[in-house]
Amino acid sequence: MARRGRDARRQAREDRRVRWLPELTRGLPFLDVVSDEELDRVHDASCRILEEVGIDFRDDESIAMWKAAGAKVDGYRVYIDRQQLMELISTAPETYTMHSRTAGHDITIGRNKTAFVPAYGAPFVLDMDNKRRNATLEDFDNFAKIAQLEPSMHMAGGVLVEPMDIPVPHRHLEMTKSLLQLSDKPLMGSVTSRERAEQSLHMMGIVHGQEFVRDNCVSTSLANANSPLVWDQTMLDAVKVYGASNQAMLFSPFVLGGASTPASTVGAVAQLSAEALAGVAFMQLVRPGSPSVYGQWTATVAMNSGAPLAGTPEIDHINMLMGQLARRYKLPWRCSGGCSSSKLVDAQAGYESARNMYGVLMAGANFVLSTTGYLESALCQSYAKAMLDGEQMRMMYKLGGGLQMDELDPAMEAVREIEPGDHYLGTDHTLANFESAFFMPELMDGDSYEQWNATGGVDANSRGIAMAQKVLAEYEEPKLPDHTLAELEDYVGRTRAETSEFVS
Amino acid sequence: MARRGRDARRQAREDRRVRWLPELTRGLPFLDVVSDEELDRVHDASCRILEEVGIDFRDDESIAMWKAAGAKVDGYRVYIDRQQLMELISTAPETYTMHSRTAGHDITIGRNKTAFVPAYGAPFVLDMDNKRRNATLEDFDNFAKIAQLEPSMHMAGGVLVEPMDIPVPHRHLEMTKSLLQLSDKPLMGSVTSRERAEQSLHMMGIVHGQEFVRDNCVSTSLANANSPLVWDQTMLDAVKVYGASNQAMLFSPFVLGGASTPASTVGAVAQLSAEALAGVAFMQLVRPGSPSVYGQWTATVAMNSGAPLAGTPEIDHINMLMGQLARRYKLPWRCSGGCSSSKLVDAQAGYESARNMYGVLMAGANFVLSTTGYLESALCQSYAKAMLDGEQMRMMYKLGGGLQMDELDPAMEAVREIEPGDHYLGTDHTLANFESAFFMPELMDGDSYEQWNATGGVDANSRGIAMAQKVLAEYEEPKLPDHTLAELEDYVGRTRAETSEFVS
Repeated sequence: MARRGRDARRQAREDRRVRWLPELTRGLPFLDVVSDEELDRVHDASCRILEEVGIDFRDDESIAMWKAAGAKVDGYRVYIDRQQLMELISTAPETYTMHSRTAGHDITIGRNKTAFVPAYGAPFVLDMDNKRRNATLEDFDNFAKIAQLEPSMHMAGGVLVEPMDIPVPHRHLEMTKSLLQLSDKPLMGSVTSRERAEQSLHMMGIVHGQEFVRDNCVSTSLANANSPLVWDQTMLDAVKVYGASNQAMLFSPFVLGGASTPASTVGAVAQLSAEALAGVAFMQLVRPGSPSVYGQWTATVAMNSGAPLAGTPEIDHINMLMGQLARRYKLPWRCSGGCSSSKLVDAQAGYESARNMYGVLMAGANFVLSTTGYLESALCQSYAKAMLDGEQMRMMYKLGGGLQMDELDPAMEAVREIEPGDHYLGTDHTLANFESAFFMPELMDGDSYEQWNATGGVDANSRGIAMAQKVLAEYEEPKLPDHTLAELEDYVGRTRAETSEFVS
Repeated sequence: MARRGRDARRQAREDRRVRWLPELTRGLPFLDVVSDEELDRVHDASCRILEEVGIDFRDDESIAMWKAAGAKVDGYRVYIDRQQLMELISTAPETYTMHSRTAGHDITIGRNKTAFVPAYGAPFVLDMDNKRRNATLEDFDNFAKIAQLEPSMHMAGGVLVEPMDIPVPHRHLEMTKSLLQLSDKPLMGSVTSRERAEQSLHMMGIVHGQEFVRDNCVSTSLANANSPLVWDQTMLDAVKVYGASNQAMLFSPFVLGGASTPASTVGAVAQLSAEALAGVAFMQLVRPGSPSVYGQWTATVAMNSGAPLAGTPEIDHINMLMGQLARRYKLPWRCSGGCSSSKLVDAQAGYESARNMYGVLMAGANFVLSTTGYLESALCQSYAKAMLDGEQMRMMYKLGGGLQMDELDPAMEAVREIEPGDHYLGTDHTLANFESAFFMPELMDGDSYEQWNATGGVDANSRGIAMAQKVLAEYEEPKLPDHTLAELEDYVGRTRAETSEFVS
């Protein structure tokens, strides 16, 4: 048994280089945390916010679009009545599929289909020497490779880290090239200006075909509202670019509960849902039927410092209620997963990330951003934690898949084979089913104290670093055709040359 | 706001010395992970195990009781048909209440009521110098004080640690005295022999009145089956003692999934449920109506070493299915919470404990053992982790309480008070509701890297140790009447003198 176990584990490690899990098909029930009547009350509160308080779209072009659609407008303030709102969101699809450049690896999101996605936007890394420093393009490439090799990651990601060694106006070019070259999973495009979104989309077209990406989804990009109740021009410009080409967008306010929302979980949800629904509705003005993801990400804030917190119970409550609303609205929805405010890969990082992610899985989110490597409330990305979280996500994936009732009859045969007080380790059933029945973590150490001590006595952070080094050494690029790579490189080179290094 | 926040937090810390949370009243829905038909299949499989394979009760007296009750018996093997099984478990109460020696602090368990309980049985401690060593009676006393002061702990606990400096035959006396003296929360009694169970019960009678504890529940003690399918004499003797006095018992096999169960989650549940149901049924033979807790605790095992693992997805599946069965059987049920196989209070300890406990909460367990301090698959108890876990359990408590819909209308007033793009920190609503709306962890550090670094840059383990020192310094004994304490001390002294230090 030990021999077989070791061989199987070695095989599993080797398979990781090629294995890719499809999106999660949920086998657990959804958790409805309030009654239908209570859900109606939250829906009504969101509608009244949009009808009576209004929401700002701080962009002339967007305002003109709302006017043309018949909404009441006052300056940048838009008042959306519930009938118009519901009509607009009804054209958003309940599920959508992102195409991969590798056949058979498309990813579907919505209803009972969920994708796990790496973290987004950290300017710092905690590196493989346990040193915290500015992130670089080399780090970005490394995290792209790690996400490519992690079976539980369904997308290449977006701003895996901020490559601080690249001038801001050039970063999106280098990041998009890295994601398209080093990974064959669907990606997230730049949203920091209309021009950058257009350039990201053009680069996706180099790989997938320019005609193809005008109508077929290969990406999902992130539009954050400025809570409370503001959509700004930068985000709206990105929505116009991607929406016009049927590329999916996330309309999911990132908020500090109690600072940019009322000091109440259900009150926060009423506002966040209004913001997300207004974003989805706007996307449908851009192109009816374009994939629009509802949702939010909330941190609560520390009362003394205003610092964002992860893994608190109110975040779970907000996620669960948002999930129930998303199912009512028949919209795919987004949340964030393995979040922590810790500065180290310590017990806090483990507690917060696991709590957060478990709550998100229970809440039934379809697009889970920030599942790996996340520290310091998104400001820092850790190599060690990226590996630990990747393994955690494989466990979340199996958990979310639900129970396998077809195991029952063969297992009952095994029960009849042995005597009370005996053990099962030698039965044919155990030998045949052990590996598939039970997930075996590689980075969680189950050894006795003595065994663990004898093999170095290291903590989970150290094991994560060692695994990151191993995986990066094993990485093989999913090669683009030579001419495609040359075209990408040429485009990045030319565009960098034409674009000032200084933010205009 | 910062000022108010600091004052409030100081107040909260001071209140901890007296605050005691009632048992959790669940406000989240239960999670039914299989259909009614599938649940029937699992129930049927358990019944067939008890009817056709049988289960050993390795104790002559118990066998005589089963014979008298009309069960088919062959040596120590008992075959319980489903009609008799269902009749017996139908007399076990769906909920029961443990009395506290402090008025108003009774604890009810079952249906939507859940109690959180400290860890059980560790022979080692990871102490406040980060040294791993044998546990002592002083450690036991310290963990009793910590559990007494932790608001989320609803019981004093049982074998908080194994006091290795006390001879085995005397340990239960010292432990029971410590629990009764240092805590006013309900406790767990000794189960390691009939005589020790009787002595534990007598000591409870010294505090609560000997007549009182013959009919009124003040404790819940732990009976572990030997999986697969064996109840041994030691445990059965303890069941006879406690059951006859209406003291609650847990019938919850601790098993290694794949070793002492079939290599299948649903197969494991069919067997575990059969074992637990047989235990509950036996308790009803001892005294119909005595509180009998169904359940289990499962670790999966590492394929290479056979070591127990925590926080794996199959454990969650097993818990969730057992919970659904418990609701079908209308029995209170037990599981274990903050478990980890880590040797340190590192990221692994955080991930595993949080995952395990979150799954147990979702599964709806009514009696959650091992919620605090647990390392090394139950072999080691950590001071730091006891503090970290205690705070986590306060968050689990709030999470399990569900959403507060009555917050919605006042929160909507706050939304109308501010303008889009503004913030809520200055609103009357926020000032009035912030503290109650959002849980503020003390041991999870939300500060920025710079703030954190400037205040020492320590990890969660170090913060946990500091908090343990602080809490132990703040502890005040909930004094027993002098004559009661004298009687306890006299009983322990006399019984120790009469009992050999060597295990007979």
